[in-house]
Amino acid sequence: MRHDQRHDNELRSVTITPDFVKHPEGSVLIEFGDTKVICNASIEDRVPPFMRGQGKGWITAEYAMLPRATEQRNIRESSKGKVSGRTMEIQRLIGRSLRSVVDLKQIGERTVWVDCDVIQADGGTRTASITGAFVAVVLAFNQLLQAKTIKKMPVTDFLAAISVGISPEGRELLDLDYKEDSEAAVDMNVVMTGTGEFIEIQGTGEEATFTQNQLHRMLDLANNGLQDLNAIQKTILGEQAGRIGETNKTKEDSP
Amino acid sequence: MRHDQRHDNELRSVTITPDFVKHPEGSVLIEFGDTKVICNASIEDRVPPFMRGQGKGWITAEYAMLPRATEQRNIRESSKGKVSGRTMEIQRLIGRSLRSVVDLKQIGERTVWVDCDVIQADGGTRTASITGAFVAVVLAFNQLLQAKTIKKMPVTDFLAAISVGISPEGRELLDLDYKEDSEAAVDMNVVMTGTGEFIEIQGTGEEATFTQNQLHRMLDLANNGLQDLNAIQKTILGEQAGRIGETNKTKEDSP
Amino acid sequence: MRHDQRHDNELRSVTITPDFVKHPEGSVLIEFGDTKVICNASIEDRVPPFMRGQGKGWITAEYAMLPRATEQRNIRESSKGKVSGRTMEIQRLIGRSLRSVVDLKQIGERTVWVDCDVIQADGGTRTASITGAFVAVVLAFNQLLQAKTIKKMPVTDFLAAISVGISPEGRELLDLDYKEDSEAAVDMNVVMTGTGEFIEIQGTGEEATFTQNQLHRMLDLANNGLQDLNAIQKTILGEQAGRIGETNKTKEDSP
Amino acid sequence: MRHDQRHDNELRSVTITPDFVKHPEGSVLIEFGDTKVICNASIEDRVPPFMRGQGKGWITAEYAMLPRATEQRNIRESSKGKVSGRTMEIQRLIGRSLRSVVDLKQIGERTVWVDCDVIQADGGTRTASITGAFVAVVLAFNQLLQAKTIKKMPVTDFLAAISVGISPEGRELLDLDYKEDSEAAVDMNVVMTGTGEFIEIQGTGEEATFTQNQLHRMLDLANNGLQDLNAIQKTILGEQAGRIGETNKTKEDSP
Amino acid sequence: MRHDQRHDNELRSVTITPDFVKHPEGSVLIEFGDTKVICNASIEDRVPPFMRGQGKGWITAEYAMLPRATEQRNIRESSKGKVSGRTMEIQRLIGRSLRSVVDLKQIGERTVWVDCDVIQADGGTRTASITGAFVAVVLAFNQLLQAKTIKKMPVTDFLAAISVGISPEGRELLDLDYKEDSEAAVDMNVVMTGTGEFIEIQGTGEEATFTQNQLHRMLDLANNGLQDLNAIQKTILGEQAGRIGETNKTKEDSP
Amino acid sequence: MRHDQRHDNELRSVTITPDFVKHPEGSVLIEFGDTKVICNASIEDRVPPFMRGQGKGWITAEYAMLPRATEQRNIRESSKGKVSGRTMEIQRLIGRSLRSVVDLKQIGERTVWVDCDVIQADGGTRTASITGAFVAVVLAFNQLLQAKTIKKMPVTDFLAAISVGISPEGRELLDLDYKEDSEAAVDMNVVMTGTGEFIEIQGTGEEATFTQNQLHRMLDLANNGLQDLNAIQKTILGEQAGRIGETNKTKEDSP
Repeated sequence: MRHDQRHDNELRSVTITPDFVKHPEGSVLIEFGDTKVICNASIEDRVPPFMRGQGKGWITAEYAMLPRATEQRNIRESSKGKVSGRTMEIQRLIGRSLRSVVDLKQIGERTVWVDCDVIQADGGTRTASITGAFVAVVLAFNQLLQAKTIKKMPVTDFLAAISVGISPEGRELLDLDYKEDSEAAVDMNVVMTGTGEFIEIQGTGEEATFTQNQLHRMLDLANNGLQDLNAIQKTILGEQAGRIGETNKTKEDSP
Repeated sequence: MRHDQRHDNELRSVTITPDFVKHPEGSVLIEFGDTKVICNASIEDRVPPFMRGQGKGWITAEYAMLPRATEQRNIRESSKGKVSGRTMEIQRLIGRSLRSVVDLKQIGERTVWVDCDVIQADGGTRTASITGAFVAVVLAFNQLLQAKTIKKMPVTDFLAAISVGISPEGRELLDLDYKEDSEAAVDMNVVMTGTGEFIEIQGTGEEATFTQNQLHRMLDLANNGLQDLNAIQKTILGEQAGRIGETNKTKEDSP
Repeated sequence: MRHDQRHDNELRSVTITPDFVKHPEGSVLIEFGDTKVICNASIEDRVPPFMRGQGKGWITAEYAMLPRATEQRNIRESSKGKVSGRTMEIQRLIGRSLRSVVDLKQIGERTVWVDCDVIQADGGTRTASITGAFVAVVLAFNQLLQAKTIKKMPVTDFLAAISVGISPEGRELLDLDYKEDSEAAVDMNVVMTGTGEFIEIQGTGEEATFTQNQLHRMLDLANNGLQDLNAIQKTILGEQAGRIGETNKTKEDSP
Repeated sequence: MRHDQRHDNELRSVTITPDFVKHPEGSVLIEFGDTKVICNASIEDRVPPFMRGQGKGWITAEYAMLPRATEQRNIRESSKGKVSGRTMEIQRLIGRSLRSVVDLKQIGERTVWVDCDVIQADGGTRTASITGAFVAVVLAFNQLLQAKTIKKMPVTDFLAAISVGISPEGRELLDLDYKEDSEAAVDMNVVMTGTGEFIEIQGTGEEATFTQNQLHRMLDLANNGLQDLNAIQKTILGEQAGRIGETNKTKEDSP
Repeated sequence: MRHDQRHDNELRSVTITPDFVKHPEGSVLIEFGDTKVICNASIEDRVPPFMRGQGKGWITAEYAMLPRATEQRNIRESSKGKVSGRTMEIQRLIGRSLRSVVDLKQIGERTVWVDCDVIQADGGTRTASITGAFVAVVLAFNQLLQAKTIKKMPVTDFLAAISVGISPEGRELLDLDYKEDSEAAVDMNVVMTGTGEFIEIQGTGEEATFTQNQLHRMLDLANNGLQDLNAIQKTILGEQAGRIGETNKTKEDSP
Repeated sequence: MRHDQRHDNELRSVTITPDFVKHPEGSVLIEFGDTKVICNASIEDRVPPFMRGQGKGWITAEYAMLPRATEQRNIRESSKGKVSGRTMEIQRLIGRSLRSVVDLKQIGERTVWVDCDVIQADGGTRTASITGAFVAVVLAFNQLLQAKTIKKMPVTDFLAAISVGISPEGRELLDLDYKEDSEAAVDMNVVMTGTGEFIEIQGTGEEATFTQNQLHRMLDLANNGLQDLNAIQKTILGEQAGRIGETNKTKEDSP
């Protein structure tokens, strides 16, 4: 058993609270155990300069933590005057993942700004962010559908993310909390569609290495966890879940 | 009656949720109507360079809004690489206000970092921040008392803040929400102690001016509202409220 | 008597030298005792992006000190690569104050840039800046009138600013110099129109608090000092003073 | 056949020129086809603040491109005043990879600065950087060994990196050049040790997704390519290659 | 005759006002015609990190213009968040020039900060800055002599700077004003000692070139003008001028 | 004899390798002894905002060193977030020098970006940069001629740069290497045309001064060295050299 009594292949308790903040077009609070992230999706009626005139939209993400989301207080990135490498990696990952399940041609020249703000951190903030952001984006698109600004739900498939890792004793674990993550020999984040295809794999063993077999066992764990996350997303989205996939993803030219 | 059915001298519904985030020494969520601010107080065991060797502590505050706390999304200050003038004014005001009711000699060479993060904004974010931050700071000092790190509650008096203003028709209003604030001819923030003395008055009539009589009526409104806020703070703090004032404020040399 | 032989309600010697620098549309050197500030007003034939297309103008202010305006040399803000919170507060205050006595519609889509550069500091640099900037702005508008670029003097009333405070022994003082300011328990800046209405009040007692009665006595002191400053401004402006008020201030939409 | 006549599982021509720049402790020019990267390793006799007093060393990497390394000229990051997210991701990846095959305890409180500067880019700059940086680091450690500053070669295993991807027609390709990379549906970078264990996998399909089978085929391709790269490294290092692995990697506490 | 009735070899009217600002150890206002620069010299009792422990001092200079020193208002460098290339070149030139006539060993581990702030510009701001800064520095050292902090005047020789140039019609001109400078084909700044040796020559013909003969005629013009400037400096310094040269410059290791 | 066996009036071995990088319109590697600089010239089909609509072109230069081009590793300017004063001086000098031998009207509204990147430094990096950049720019213009985008070679004359200095024993030296440069009493950079006219002279004696006679001897040395550099440039350019001078430089309005 793990330090919090979970089985190796068990997710923490996951909660998604829709409409958490009143202003955004889509907003959720997502909790993976003690990790809590506000995911807000905002629609802007224009695209960044490099996308103009192509008749399609863009999705971009920003990620931040409150200074005291963590055990030790962190200096604000606004005070430092720059965004850290870790933050940039995470926000690029969130944006890339979301864009892979949205048909950008369907949304016209609009930008979806996704803000993931971690108010309490206990490991897995990037996977919670992606999983919650997906729901916020669907809620935002639903507003556009209600307003008849767009005609079809532009989301082509479900999307969720989870972490897996290898413990110091060599056990493969699903959904690591902060304590487990800081002790893990290997740490991997997996982003998948609802139909079980990979969108992104990022695995690293800074102080260790891992074998092909360990890789397979970690991917299996992730696969099962991600199906559970999809089920929770489906419940929260209710009727709106039914419209996911009504558009097929077409291959876009990358910007 | 006002647009939300309040009387001119009526506060919005005020809620303070203690222990909102688990890591900080003191944490509250404060709500003034639809304005919601997370106030976290963190204790650091050293003071900034300009305070070293004086045997006393320091309190400093930072303030930020989530990008979509407002009707329109704002660009993150970390992306802009600098903090706006408005943000700096507010964080300097919060810090100054808190320092005026804390005997910094009692806390030794420690810094209290107060983080006020607005997750939803509807006017009055700076007054809600001060009022909530006061509670978070008392909770944090209580932890130090429990751990016997300090001997006396270093807080010398209660502290709260409220806005008052003059409507376009010339009525004095208490606790303006965003709609009222954006229409107001005159806007004033008042910070007072529990014993009814002023800590800070900031009144401005950018497009208008105001008379001595209007000033008095606004200060009376504020005074009443602030007593109500003190009562709410007292309820939340329970027993800990009783220790406020056990230290008398001594005149400090400013740094 | 005060350390420099003044009565409690006495201004320092005030001098305003018009046309101090040759290039700006309006330029004065203002001296409050040993505090010396160059106030330059520049007219630019366009407004910032957020004001475009509204057919009215804008006034904005910048404030800086020479590094050795003070007893200790300060690091230049250009070397630090950012503007301090104190500087931002002061320049926002100067801009707001000036805008409250100018009918921005009268000046068309033009920006008035007001630069207040302190060449020697001895307390009261922000009040000297506002008082001098007012004269520089009137001189600049007079050039526009002479050139028939505008038809009426767009300044609706006189404007001046002064500091008041409470000494460690509890005496209310007018126009504090640096020594008095650094010892004062309470420090307040008051900005008023020529007709005696408030534009801005900013009072703070960082290490102390103040009562309603003390507030009244300080405001009375300020009121008298400000009338003297208006008289000095009138003398310097000569004929041009007569045109102030020929436009009535109309309520503007704030930007 | 591919557009440059390679087989799907064929590397581009790879050249490593040791001692390319005279000042650094270790220096190579590495070429993967038309991609050319200077990799310099510098030894500094201290560690960053967060590592001090632990008796072990640190390895950090920086990555940059000459403005005209690419078809279109890029603005210098020094002119922009900040480092892009892409650059940060790459330099973090290079540093992490190198640290995983070096026993930091063996090098004492020293920092190895690895600078990878791309002088000509044609796809695969990050994999060439890692592969070349490994050789530069071994050369630098060899200098420390010669000078008897350290006693054992602290490198525990070989290290190389290669890209694999899926072409628009669905073929798995090894070592993509720029043209192939910009058309690829899926792009993956694999970093492995000489003994065939994974150090890092980063696979992304921004506009596409990939299946478990495709993943396996890509990993097999990478595995073969990496063995070839190890062989080239071994030839260049000559005698020094023999000392790799004389230290066993011990599990470090991450910083 | 030139547009302002000067002969080709004639300086503008030059005025130096000592003790212009009260706080600095040395302060002058220098005027070259309509160019007005405040030069303040401040003594700090330590040297920058790269100079520590060498038992000698350092001199560094900063240069800035008020935004409206010029015909068109310039954006403040503090607002832009960085110092321009032109400003850096000028402040490096001023510092280098002053260091060449000061025996840094005589002043111990102290830094002289020289601030040249242009309040009105009409060409020649860098030469006026050097010429004025020299006087301010001597005044500051005189304070150290009076206080017996140092024993000998550490200044080894006089120092002044002047511009020369070639007009569009090919005439060599001394001390160009803004109008002449902006039309000139060639522009040269010459810094010399009181004994007629060169400290610095910077000549440029961006849109033109110049011959050896033209160079000689320009250097002769400069030489004469610089002797006049030395005479003015001598008059202002009075008795203190006599102590210049009591120390002989020794060759320093550059830092 | 000098420490590397050269005569006082002898250049180091100079090599110019054309077409060093494949993407730029013009590219060379230039070597002055152990100093190695990549000079790339890129053509952009527009000019900066301050030049638009004038029907002529612009040339601008950037200069940087790899962190380990020098004996001690330097921090990257992209990491520091700003460009140093030294770098700015050098890039302004390179740009100015090139513009003085190009008829900007002939190239239409295009910008030539010249990037000088030092990969190994041993003194004279700025003179090598100018000398190499000249060749890169001619190569780039030749591409425009081949493509018939422009009709005449817009380069009006040859251009090269060299350093001269005075050794501690008072000998005038040509083309100083790093060791000589760091010991020199006086350091001068001279930029001349192929017809022997000056474009730029920058001479400085930070810790020393120099006489008129020394100046003449240094300029003679430089003159001879520059003729040798022109000959090397001519050889590399081959046929293209013949077209230099087919346009006469016309006096431009400075931007």
